[in-house]
Order: sequence, then C-alpha cells, then structure tokens
Amino acid sequence: MTNYSLLANAIRMLSVDAVEKANSGHPGMPMGMAEIGVVLWKNHLKHNPANPKWINRDRFVLSNGHGSMLIYSLLHLTGYNLGIEDIKQFRQFGSKTPGHPEYGYTDGVETTTGPLGQGLANAVGMALAEKLLAHQFNKPKFNMIDHHTYAFVGDGCLMEGISHEVCSFAGTANLGKLIVFYDDNGISIDGEVKGWFSEDVATRFKAYGWQVIEGIDGHNIEQIDNAINVAKQNATQPTMIMCKTTIGMGSPNKAGKEDCHGSPLGSKEVEIVRKELGWNYEPFSIPSEVYQQFDCREHGCSLESTWNNLFAEYTKQFTDLATDLKRRITHQLPDNWQQIVQDGVSFAIKKHETIATRKASQNALDYYAQFLPELLGGSADLTGSNLTKWKDSITLDPENNFIGNYISYGVREFGMSAMLNGIYLHGGFKPFGGTFLMFSEYARNALRMASLMKIAPIFVYTHDSIGLGEDGPTHQPVEQIATLRMIPNMNVWRPCDTVETYVAWGLALAESSTPSSLIFSRQNLDYIQRDEKSLSEISRGGYILRSNSPDIEILIIATGSEVGLSLLAYETLINNGHKVQLVSMPSTSVFDKQDVEYKRTVIPQNAKFKVAIEAGVSNPWYKYVGMDGLIIGVDTFGESAKASDLFEHFGLTAEKVLQKINTFIRN
Amino acid sequence: MTNYSLLANAIRMLSVDAVEKANSGHPGMPMGMAEIGVVLWKNHLKHNPANPKWINRDRFVLSNGHGSMLIYSLLHLTGYNLGIEDIKQFRQFGSKTPGHPEYGYTDGVETTTGPLGQGLANAVGMALAEKLLAHQFNKPKFNMIDHHTYAFVGDGCLMEGISHEVCSFAGTANLGKLIVFYDDNGISIDGEVKGWFSEDVATRFKAYGWQVIEGIDGHNIEQIDNAINVAKQNATQPTMIMCKTTIGMGSPNKAGKEDCHGSPLGSKEVEIVRKELGWNYEPFSIPSEVYQQFDCREHGCSLESTWNNLFAEYTKQFTDLATDLKRRITHQLPDNWQQIVQDGVSFAIKKHETIATRKASQNALDYYAQFLPELLGGSADLTGSNLTKWKDSITLDPENNFIGNYISYGVREFGMSAMLNGIYLHGGFKPFGGTFLMFSEYARNALRMASLMKIAPIFVYTHDSIGLGEDGPTHQPVEQIATLRMIPNMNVWRPCDTVETYVAWGLALAESSTPSSLIFSRQNLDYIQRDEKSLSEISRGGYILRSNSPDIEILIIATGSEVGLSLLAYETLINNGHKVQLVSMPSTSVFDKQDVEYKRTVIPQNAKFKVAIEAGVSNPWYKYVGMDGLIIGVDTFGESAKASDLFEHFGLTAEKVLQKINTFIRN
Repeated sequence: MTNYSLLANAIRMLSVDAVEKANSGHPGMPMGMAEIGVVLWKNHLKHNPANPKWINRDRFVLSNGHGSMLIYSLLHLTGYNLGIEDIKQFRQFGSKTPGHPEYGYTDGVETTTGPLGQGLANAVGMALAEKLLAHQFNKPKFNMIDHHTYAFVGDGCLMEGISHEVCSFAGTANLGKLIVFYDDNGISIDGEVKGWFSEDVATRFKAYGWQVIEGIDGHNIEQIDNAINVAKQNATQPTMIMCKTTIGMGSPNKAGKEDCHGSPLGSKEVEIVRKELGWNYEPFSIPSEVYQQFDCREHGCSLESTWNNLFAEYTKQFTDLATDLKRRITHQLPDNWQQIVQDGVSFAIKKHETIATRKASQNALDYYAQFLPELLGGSADLTGSNLTKWKDSITLDPENNFIGNYISYGVREFGMSAMLNGIYLHGGFKPFGGTFLMFSEYARNALRMASLMKIAPIFVYTHDSIGLGEDGPTHQPVEQIATLRMIPNMNVWRPCDTVETYVAWGLALAESSTPSSLIFSRQNLDYIQRDEKSLSEISRGGYILRSNSPDIEILIIATGSEVGLSLLAYETLINNGHKVQLVSMPSTSVFDKQDVEYKRTVIPQNAKFKVAIEAGVSNPWYKYVGMDGLIIGVDTFGESAKASDLFEHFGLTAEKVLQKINTFIRN
Repeated sequence: MTNYSLLANAIRMLSVDAVEKANSGHPGMPMGMAEIGVVLWKNHLKHNPANPKWINRDRFVLSNGHGSMLIYSLLHLTGYNLGIEDIKQFRQFGSKTPGHPEYGYTDGVETTTGPLGQGLANAVGMALAEKLLAHQFNKPKFNMIDHHTYAFVGDGCLMEGISHEVCSFAGTANLGKLIVFYDDNGISIDGEVKGWFSEDVATRFKAYGWQVIEGIDGHNIEQIDNAINVAKQNATQPTMIMCKTTIGMGSPNKAGKEDCHGSPLGSKEVEIVRKELGWNYEPFSIPSEVYQQFDCREHGCSLESTWNNLFAEYTKQFTDLATDLKRRITHQLPDNWQQIVQDGVSFAIKKHETIATRKASQNALDYYAQFLPELLGGSADLTGSNLTKWKDSITLDPENNFIGNYISYGVREFGMSAMLNGIYLHGGFKPFGGTFLMFSEYARNALRMASLMKIAPIFVYTHDSIGLGEDGPTHQPVEQIATLRMIPNMNVWRPCDTVETYVAWGLALAESSTPSSLIFSRQNLDYIQRDEKSLSEISRGGYILRSNSPDIEILIIATGSEVGLSLLAYETLINNGHKVQLVSMPSTSVFDKQDVEYKRTVIPQNAKFKVAIEAGVSNPWYKYVGMDGLIIGVDTFGESAKASDLFEHFGLTAEKVLQKINTFIRN
C-alpha cells in the first residue's frame, strides 16, 4: 500500500532541506503541490525513468518553474538519473539541479521554465504536436503516439497574458489530452492575490471551452486522483483542475504566507517543519520505504517495452511510416538534404526572379515542403502578408477537427512562439511561425528561451524595414534586426534575394541546436548575379559579392534590401576608378562563427574606408567598420508614407548612398 | 433631428475614398463601426474640439488602430482642427493622417495605436488615472475630474495576451468609468475567426468582474445608445459592450469578408458602395447638413466653459489644490527641482552607503516622493525585490476601493508597461513600474511605444546581470541592457552607486518627452568617491571618474556594477606607471547626445588602448572602443550559481579584469 502522505512529506523535506542548504530558492510551492505531484507521478504519469526520451511518454511541464525542487524531488524519488548528491548541489555552479528547471541539464526536464506562463504555452504546443503526430502515424490498433501532456501552473502563470493566448487556442483546437493543474494558493510575491487577481479563473477557462474541475482539495489524495481520471476521460476538451492548496503546507509559522514563496524557511522553522511532519530523518536522508513506494522504474520499463513490442509489429506492417517516425523524432533530416538545398538554389538561380523576399520565402517553402513531412507552419493571423502558407498545406480548422500542417495561431505572437518551442521539444516536427518583424517584440522572451534551450524552431518575420510603407512607425522595424542579433545562439538571416532566401531556409531547417529568425522584405528586391565562389559562401553568413581588386580601398557591407542599392553604388565607384569590395552579410550571427582568416578576407582590416548599409539602427555595425567607418542606417523611428518616399527621406536610395560614400572618402 | 445613417455613411465614404486615394489602408473596420462611432461621439462623448487637451474630457482610444480613418473622420466631422485636405493626405509623408493614429500628429488622438491590445491597455491606464486623480482633487460639489474612458477593440485586441492582463486588472480595480466596445465582426486577417478564436468573450469578461452588455446590433442606433446609457450608470464595474457588426458594411461584394480588412475596395466596388449607400457626392465632398448635424464645437465649448466656471470657484476655495492640479496636468515639476536633486545627491554623498542600487533607488524614491504628490508607483508582483515601494506610499487594495499611489500590478509586465503609458497620457501623474530586468522582454513593445509617443513614464528594472545569482539564466539579463539602448528616444541608466542612482532618478523624473529605463543591481555596490567636476558631469551620461594624465594610454569605460571593479584595476594600473582614464558611463543614450568636444574629452580618440567593461553582450561597445578595443562582457547565457561564483566564472572580478587588460596592452 502506498503511503501517499509519507511520499508527499519526502518531497517537502527534500525541498526544504535543499533550499536551506543552498540558502536560496522557493520552498513554498513544492510544499503546497507535494500531494498533487505524488498522485500524478505515482498513479498516472506514463513515463520510464530509464529512458526519459521515450517518444510516447506523457509530457510533464512545471510552468511555475521556481518550484524546481518539486520536479527534482519527483525525478530523484521515482528513479531517474538524479542522485541525492545532485539534490545537495541545488542551485550550485555546474549542477544538474539549477535554480529553475533547465532543459538539457537534467533527465526528465522537458522544457526550461521560470519566465511565467511560457511553460504552459510549451505544454499547449506539446499537446498540439501529440495530436497532429498521432494523426499522421497512428493506424487502427497501432496508437503509436498516444499520451497526455500535464502542466502545473500558479497564479503568476495565469496572470500573464500568454496564458490567455494559448489557453484560448487550446480550447478552440480541442486539445483533449492537455491536463493543467492550477495551484490555487491565493498568494503571489506581493502577498494575497485578491488585491490584483480576483478574476473567476474557472469561469474564464469555461469561456475558453475547457473542462474545468473545481473545488479540488490539493492535499486530498482521493480528490486529486479522481479529478485526473475525469480529466483523462475527456478526449475533446483540455482540462483545468482547480486545486485549492496551502503554500508552504507543513510549515506551522509560514504556511499560507508569501514569505515562504521565495526564501529559505530558516533553520529554526525547518526543525519545526520536521517535527510537524513527523520526519525523523536527517537532511537528504530518505527512508528506503519511500524509495520503494515511489520507484517507477519497473512500471516504466514495462510500459515502454509494451510500446516497443507494438512498434516492432508496426514496423513490419508500416515500414516506411516507422522509419520516418524514427527519423523525425530524432530531428534527422532526409539523407540527401545537402543535394536538396543545392537543387533548390539552382532552381532559384534559373528563375532569377525579382520578387519580395517574403515571396521568395514562400517559393522556398513550396520547394522544401515536398521533402519534409515534418514541416508544421503557421502565422499569427498574417498568412497572406507573411506568405507562410505553402501549396498543398492543410490549415487546421473546425471542419477537420483541427488536423493539418498549417496553423492559424490568431493574433497571438508570444503564444505562437512559445508553442513553437513546445512543438519542437515534443519532437516529430520542424515548426515555424510568422508575423511582422515588429511583432517579434511581443514574443521576444520566447525567442530567447529557444536560444537558451538550444532548440531549433524557425521564426519568420516579414515587412522588415521602413520599406513596409504606409502603416507607419508602429509597424516599421528600425531596431528589431539589431536586437534579435543580440540574443546568444540565435541565427538571424536577412537575405537580399531569392538565392540567399533558399540558402537561409535550407540552413535554418537543418539546424538542430540553434533557432533561426528569417527576416524578409515586403517589397520586391532585385535578383543578384553571383559567381560560383560567392554562391558557395552564402552559407558562411557574409561573403564577397563583388571585388575589383585584392587591395581594397573601399569596403561596403550591406544586408537584405540594401544589397541591391549597394551594388549600384559599387558599380559607379569602380567606374570612377576606386578599388571596392562589396560584401553581402545576410547573417552576422553565422559570419561571426567563421574562422579568423575567412573573416579577414571578407572584411580586410586595411581597407581604408569601411561602410555598412542597413535600413536599421547603426549600432551593431561599429563592430565591422570601426569607430571611423561610415554607417548608413536609420536611427530614428519611421514615418507613415509610401516606401519609396521613405527610402528617399531616410537617404537609402542608390544615389544618396553614393553621395554619402563620396563625401566620406573625400573627407 | 440627427440623421444617424447619413452621418455613419459620411464616415464610410470618407474612409473608403481616403483609402482608395492612398491606395493603401483598412476600410473594413470604419465601415463596420461607423454607427457606433456616430452614436458615441455625437450623443455621449464629452469633448471640446476647440480644446483637445481639456483635462476633464472623456478619453477615446481606437485600440484597433488600423481603422484610423474612423477616428480621422470623426475628428474632421465633429469640428477638430483636421481639414478635408488633411484627410486627402491620408497615409502620405508628413500628413496629420498617418496610417495608424499617432499621438502628437493629430489633435484629438489620445494615444498611438496599431500594435494590437496596447490601446486597450492605455485605456485601462487612463481610467485608473482618472479614478486616482479624482480621489486626490475632487471635493464635495467639485467633481473637477469626472470623465469616462472609451475604447474600441477588435478581435485582434482580444486575442492578444495583454488584453487579458489589463482587463483582469480593470475588473479587480473596479474601473467603473471604462467602457469598451467590442467590434464583434467574426473576421480577422486570416479569415473567419472561428478557426482560431472561438472563446466565449462575454463569459470571459464576466469572469473578470465586468458588466457585459450582450447582443447589441452594432448598426442599430437605439441599441448602441441604450447600451452606452446602461454602461454609464454602472460606477463600479468596467463595461464591455458586445457589438455584432459586419466588417465593410455597405460594400455589397466585400462586406463580411476578410479582403476588405486591409486593402482598398477598388474603384469599381467604391462606385457600387456609393450607389448602395445612396451617396451622391464626389469623393471628399461632404454635404453641409452632415457637417451641421455632426458639429460638436458649440456643445463642447459649453461643456468646457461650465467646467471652467466650476474650476474658477474651486480655485478660490481650494487654491493650493487648484494650483497643484494645473501644475501636474501640464507635467510641470516643482519650481525648485534642480535644488531638490542637488540636495538629494548631497544627502547620498553624506551617507556614502555601500548598498545595492535597487536599495539606493528605494532611498531615492523615499526622498523624491516628498516633493512629488504625482508619483504613482508600482511593480509587477516584485515589490519586495524591486524595492519600488517608498515609505508612506499607499497600496491600492480592496479595503480602500483601490485608491492610493502604489499599484500591485500582478504578474503582468506588458500590461503594466502599457498602462504606465496610458496613465502618463492621461496626465496628472508621474508613473513608474518595476520588474526584473529580464522581464522587460515581456513588455518590450510598450517601451517602444512610450519612446515613439515621446512620453516619459519610468521603467524600473532590478536584478540587472548574472549578479542575480541562483535563479539562473532564465532570470539573468545578458543582452537586455544592450537591446533597451537600441530603442530610439529611450534613456537607459545603469548607475554604479547611490550617487548616480539619485542623479538618474532626478533626471528621469524631470523628463517630459523621453521615457527612462532605470537599471539597478541586486547585489551591493561600493560607494564611489568623486570630485566636484565628476559629480557635476554624471548628468551627461558618461564622465571621467578618474584620470592620472592628460595624455591617456589606457581608457577604461565601465557601467553599473563593473565601475567598482574597474576602479580597483585602475589603481593597480596607475601604480604600475600607466596613464589611465576611467570613465563611468551610466547612460550611453544621454552621453551620445553631448557635444563632440565633451565626448572627445571623455573618450579621447588617441588613447592607445581602449577597454569597455559591462556584464552584458559586448556588441554595443565597439562604438566606443573600436574594432581594436578590448571588451570585457558576457556573450553567452548565464548559469545558476552564487553571484560570486558567476563573476569569477565569467571573468568579471577585479583580478581577472586586470589580467585581461594587462594581456591586452602587452600584445
């Protein structure tokens, strides 16, 4: 017989002692959600501690990630590769138990959480991925993909706007296998939430079309267990289980108060908690009966082995599908990817179209999608503007029970982006989503989370500059390209024509540990001729597009829409007898990773005059042209007017650029 | 008798013709909301076209700002300073009628809208400002501040997460004078919203504690009028009026379809619309009866003059209050502000404390708040961490009907920031709000909107680097200081000690056309000694803190927590015989605005070795130290560990900095 209280108290004491030892952390949440954790992980969660990557496991997301000791306790006690010594290293440098759960640091942590609301959004993405993957691979009697996604959320998650975006979406998309536990403890950092958060959460979620199970005592084993059973029976609605809990439960003097939220209880109170819980063990000493009762290894192995047997049979009957599923869940590309990209680029060269790069992007998608059944596209309600939908793609909609490979996310940029992270983390898909470049700002922290987690969703941003025109400064990016480049481990591409666009897509799709931001123009851009060498070097992020001498006098670096006009300036300059090198730099992020020798060839240190041209803030370019270089950019907000009027006004025409360069080299 | 249909059709035709002439714009929304606009502006809105800045006017916010021709039509037709020639210049360079309503461009436009959801958040801020200002200034029989705030919102606004944040808050705070019209037309850019937005909006808003008036036909004058009357009678709940409308109403072939959302109807359809509406006038020709019926000038003048008379009496009876109200609504500081700042700085010098700059910030608030009854503070649920609450401030809470001068915004960074913009735009307050620096990312576009609108709310960001410690990389800013600096017209301050903190607050509070981001440390920072000259130059953003020679060999620039360790390095270097200049650069934004001579003195071009030190990404510093300079920064994500371990690991100790500088100057 399982002694649930004992197991819950083991979580409490591990959490309390680890926080105390680190002298830093959040004991209140693990103490408050201990019973919910035990019941879910012990009685319901389908997982195999010996193989945290088993594709058909249930997904578990701790969206209120500050309570990280809850998941570390659960992982340790159920038998994952996380020893008591790891727990003792809570929040220490290089440990497997950092302050917040970090993806890639700890087996069994499905996503990095902490920035509130985003874990919930990841969970919605995972549940959506499960539903779509199941549809693509399951066959009668072979439910190869068939699992739940569970998330724990606190008041903070539900206050954040992103919770609205993704939960509204989840209700519309009938994500019946998503089950969320609301840790309704009435306390956030500023105190009792009634002073700033008095909404009726149950009614709100009913309005989203969710099943809401109300009035669960979060410390009552049977109520929790029953609620989960009810939740699992509903296949068409996501379920919100409203759990009334006491933060810091077990602490006689701090339970129910905000001061146990984010600080150690203090050694005195810890001893009082020990007595209160009747826990007669030293810190980090767990009685063997707890380990025995909590151990999920045997059951987990048995679950996976049943699945493995079924998959073996599935492999016989549906060999191609099985092979493809294996390929996709490990994020492998088709074998001949290099050749596919080369053929695509050749095709773009053959067509040599002068079109907007957003249109070139759609052409690239039409092409690459043929080879990638894992492509899962979408847009935050700008499909016709982003040109993110490719031919033969199927939009999720009510008529087909929201099955397909193209998602209208609605006007929900942050929700979409964090869902892309969740979809990628689930496995089986190459997800991308589009919006205007400006609205990358609404989603900013989700891009950072992708970069931090070393995952590779693709963010598509169109309407990349003042070239957007009449919609005006609220919609005209000026500083956004620069700020995206500042995110560590984010590949930012701003192609100048169809060829660079095909290359950028080819590389972004091939990434497995770096997300990409692909930035495209609204307006038409000239097709650029290149020789074989230039062509082969596009993938290095920056390359010599034109050069009329090994001994350079004027170096010009440009990106995107400014490459075409730089080319015109280049031609005039060489006609006037100058020695000029024109560099196209679609990706500073990728260029920066090249070897020093290559970089020095592309950007020769001894070029007397260095010029950078980009329709955006100038700051990032000092790195490449120095304090004495000329940077032709846009350092103020835009204006509402025709694009051509704006380029004229902001000095970004071939003529004005040439004038500025001539003035620069004369002085 | 007012012919409402005629007036509504005048809006339709003005909108259609202006979009057609510009060959760009969004006709669908103004056509769909024309009747609502007429009824509200003609029958209810308390405004005076002759004085768009009258403090007690009702506020009107077009949150679905793409429908800008609706407000331009209303402003033109009711008698504002916006002529038919201005309408003809819709979306053209330098016009008063840009693509989206832009604050400061057009009389009567209360805020810049377009980025969806933020207008609604501004409106919530305005309604809150009205409530708090009324409480501070109204006296029996003298309701000097007593107006409504109206907002139009579309599906997009309600999908955005920020709508959740601010509407949940508005319900909790009983903002009874906020009245929102939902343009429920079932269409967004991707098509019929039921495929991605099927939530029950009415139920959702009831869950927020709002009064919801359902089932209003948005083309039925009487129903709209009645709904507004009901809304105005409810003093304790914000009201959502659910208006069923047809997008593009009046266009036989495009009404109800997404293709009239964001594109001109086309000349053929325009002619059909003309016939359909029986509109026998040329484009931009409005019959005089329309002007006569719509004209709000006389009524507006009468409204304001009644108020002026009352205010004259109020001024007699409550002279000090009246004077202060006048001062505050024009964003004037107390007369002796310079002296106040100087005294504050002297006080900080006298105490010369080694404390965290977040604590110094709280001390500065304690000090400045005495002189500024308009200070309106708050935090996104991190009050105790941000240290944003000053002594004697009163937190809004249910016990006092949400009256006070300190706001617990809840975990709603974006909502808070856009509300700060709305509060500032309303007038009467100096609003600021705090969160961790990392979560500036959740709010990013609201900061940009403040900068774009040239308004001056203050954003307080604590826990400014890896110095945050154990909470780990999700909470440790690396690229955030750099990206904030990229926003045009944003003053970013990162003070190094108590003195710089007092100066930064003093300047931020004095700004009237530039928002400020004040960035503070979690950890203690040494108090820095300075001479009078250095002291007087802090306000220039960057200044010489130490220099041992007019002929500089090594230049070191540092900010915030890195100034103290640079000072240690400086002392060792000069002891070793080097000629060194140490620059503290709390604000690159402000420093960049100084004259060239000053900048060259602080950063001498001929310094042989230039070094920049900041615990963040290195990119922004090339501008100041060049391609050959040494930048000691953090170009990767942080880790979860003690702050001291992290500074050691990332090479940001005095010893390691000195090593790096020595290596640099030897090579």
